[in-house]
Amino acid sequence: MLHSNLLRLVARRPPSRLMSTATKLTTVEVNDKTGIATLTMNRPPVNSQNVQLLLDLQSSISEIENNKSRGLILTSASSNVFSAGLDIFEMYNTDVERLRTVWTELQNVWIALYGTSLPTAAAINGHAPAGGCLLATACEYRVMRPNFLIGLNEAQLGIIAPKWLMAGFAGVLPKRLAERALTQGRMFTTQEAFEAGLVDEIASTKEEAVEKCAAFIGTFAKVNPLARGLTKLQFRADNIREFEEIREKDVADFAALASSAEVQKVMGTYLENLKNKGKK
Amino acid sequence: MLHSNLLRLVARRPPSRLMSTATKLTTVEVNDKTGIATLTMNRPPVNSQNVQLLLDLQSSISEIENNKSRGLILTSASSNVFSAGLDIFEMYNTDVERLRTVWTELQNVWIALYGTSLPTAAAINGHAPAGGCLLATACEYRVMRPNFLIGLNEAQLGIIAPKWLMAGFAGVLPKRLAERALTQGRMFTTQEAFEAGLVDEIASTKEEAVEKCAAFIGTFAKVNPLARGLTKLQFRADNIREFEEIREKDVADFAALASSAEVQKVMGTYLENLKNKGKK
Amino acid sequence: MLHSNLLRLVARRPPSRLMSTATKLTTVEVNDKTGIATLTMNRPPVNSQNVQLLLDLQSSISEIENNKSRGLILTSASSNVFSAGLDIFEMYNTDVERLRTVWTELQNVWIALYGTSLPTAAAINGHAPAGGCLLATACEYRVMRPNFLIGLNEAQLGIIAPKWLMAGFAGVLPKRLAERALTQGRMFTTQEAFEAGLVDEIASTKEEAVEKCAAFIGTFAKVNPLARGLTKLQFRADNIREFEEIREKDVADFAALASSAEVQKVMGTYLENLKNKGKK
Repeated sequence: MLHSNLLRLVARRPPSRLMSTATKLTTVEVNDKTGIATLTMNRPPVNSQNVQLLLDLQSSISEIENNKSRGLILTSASSNVFSAGLDIFEMYNTDVERLRTVWTELQNVWIALYGTSLPTAAAINGHAPAGGCLLATACEYRVMRPNFLIGLNEAQLGIIAPKWLMAGFAGVLPKRLAERALTQGRMFTTQEAFEAGLVDEIASTKEEAVEKCAAFIGTFAKVNPLARGLTKLQFRADNIREFEEIREKDVADFAALASSAEVQKVMGTYLENLKNKGKK
Repeated sequence: MLHSNLLRLVARRPPSRLMSTATKLTTVEVNDKTGIATLTMNRPPVNSQNVQLLLDLQSSISEIENNKSRGLILTSASSNVFSAGLDIFEMYNTDVERLRTVWTELQNVWIALYGTSLPTAAAINGHAPAGGCLLATACEYRVMRPNFLIGLNEAQLGIIAPKWLMAGFAGVLPKRLAERALTQGRMFTTQEAFEAGLVDEIASTKEEAVEKCAAFIGTFAKVNPLARGLTKLQFRADNIREFEEIREKDVADFAALASSAEVQKVMGTYLENLKNKGKK
Repeated sequence: MLHSNLLRLVARRPPSRLMSTATKLTTVEVNDKTGIATLTMNRPPVNSQNVQLLLDLQSSISEIENNKSRGLILTSASSNVFSAGLDIFEMYNTDVERLRTVWTELQNVWIALYGTSLPTAAAINGHAPAGGCLLATACEYRVMRPNFLIGLNEAQLGIIAPKWLMAGFAGVLPKRLAERALTQGRMFTTQEAFEAGLVDEIASTKEEAVEKCAAFIGTFAKVNPLARGLTKLQFRADNIREFEEIREKDVADFAALASSAEVQKVMGTYLENLKNKGKK
């Protein structure tokens, strides 16, 4: 009865495949007092997004949607990285089918987070490039610790942020600044991100960031949750519809691009550098 | 000859049903010097929008379009309310047909105001929740008296602002702030509304508000009225087209929602509270 | 392989008709050190856009795309006019076919500049009304000398900025301000344009303006040019698609409007005034 097209939108979202509450790379904690769930990414050292982390994120979002939580706060167990984005190791020297799986699961996480009717906020307690920024901008609110970097730097890596991600990004920044940041592959400092509107508040510690996220979710305390959720989904409906229309083509495009000799070579050099630095 | 698709847009607007210049709940005054018409809502105590007020608004807009006025200023006869939005009395304990009529006439007022080629401005001399904010944001310019509240608070009432209204709202505020305000059902103080861009100027009295609206309309003095009107309609064409596509479905959705037991109960409690407060 | 729909977009752009590097009304200079090309309009006294200048602009853009330049800076040889817009002399007392040609070539210049994958910036060293502002807003960045005027003043001339131009303009300014400026036919001073976001920087001399444009283009030094170009075209894809859909109808609309007795009369009066002032 209630705005049936929106309910259909929600129903159309891909079902999450894992329903267990004990996932490996994410944890969910619900605050007894506030009823707000905190979803923590925990894949050391930098929460790089392999297929397992992407599946665990979907599972945790689904769990929070079903456990009557009043909202979702996304954060990281790392002390200096929110998420480094897709895991290059999984995309190097592999077959097209694997690349298709990686991208499909990234899409699934994005739409699960962008399209949830729950209030969402990101406590960005470290760097958030590429896929890290994707998660943060899918939320409704962003609080970030000082002196870190955030941005969609795909162009710097020789790849292209997908159109559905651009649309979400342009919903946060003014259009002119969004285009410029995307073409530059610009990484914003916390302060620059705050001034541009890419993050809403700055917090000196992770605890303070989570508190500010909870305060944002608290602004919905007197709002009917069903009306709130449908309002959010109606506001985002055009982007969601366009995503659904292009998602399959987008997987094919990404797989073709990421398997190209040129991009594989960039990945190889990147991984070689990582090894030499003794990191990861 | 002149941009025929736009002229068709104009033609497609529903004809107003009352052509009499003497309406009951609205008055129209044309300033001899400036040629600008002031449309005043006068349904004490709070200009709540029943079907009659909605019909009278359409009739007055149509009258002003036809009397060669140079622009339209919308204001209220009340000293502290611009308009309180839809009249709950008309929607409580009634049949679906009545709910359909209420919503259809609200749509008709919105498109008459949003889609008029005349310059429009709102002198917001009091509170403007829900349908009051709808009227104000359909205009091209907004001047508001201090210490009142304005916003689309539908979510707080358990209902959902329609998509065409969201689109108009997102044309006034940055997208990120528009989504947040809609999901919160946020009421802005005059000062907050000014800082967010939701109102353009603050004026201490109604007279000053009307003067500032007239000054805005005066900025078009040297602009060819036909070119101006077509420019406005072309800029608003995408929203107008989407409204036309969904208007019928939107009436059905609203009637189903407003007749639900849940929303009827909210209305009943609201009206009970009004009675106990001795208001209205 | 790389995002085939975008490559198709690029391919669909009309081929430029003149390939000679020696054009009459424009010059191209490539800086040896930076690899950035400067395209200078040189049709005294005010760079009014006749068909020849429009063809020469297309030819020069195409030349710069093909000569491996790292970016394009658009500027003027005049000391006080960037470009005065379309040449009224070519549109007065002429036949519909000529009007169709003028508008088609204006469209061709706009899409060539708006849709190039190269980084683009405008060094606006003088007034930029109408078609001058069109060129500037098709670029990705704008630097302007003080005390000049810029804007889409079509409404003041009794005509209507085309929908594709409005879309580009609304990508630079907030939507609310874009609508207001378009309906007013507003000309912004350099300072006003800077405050509104219509220009990005102010520079006291042409040399400084060109330097600042080069610095902007330099921000792409470490970005893969192919990824950058595809990112830009994907961000602009919706506007480009809508332009392609309406471009033919838009030519017909303009020719009908510009050949009307009313608009021809305005043009006649304008040209008479020019003659009397001894200008041009």
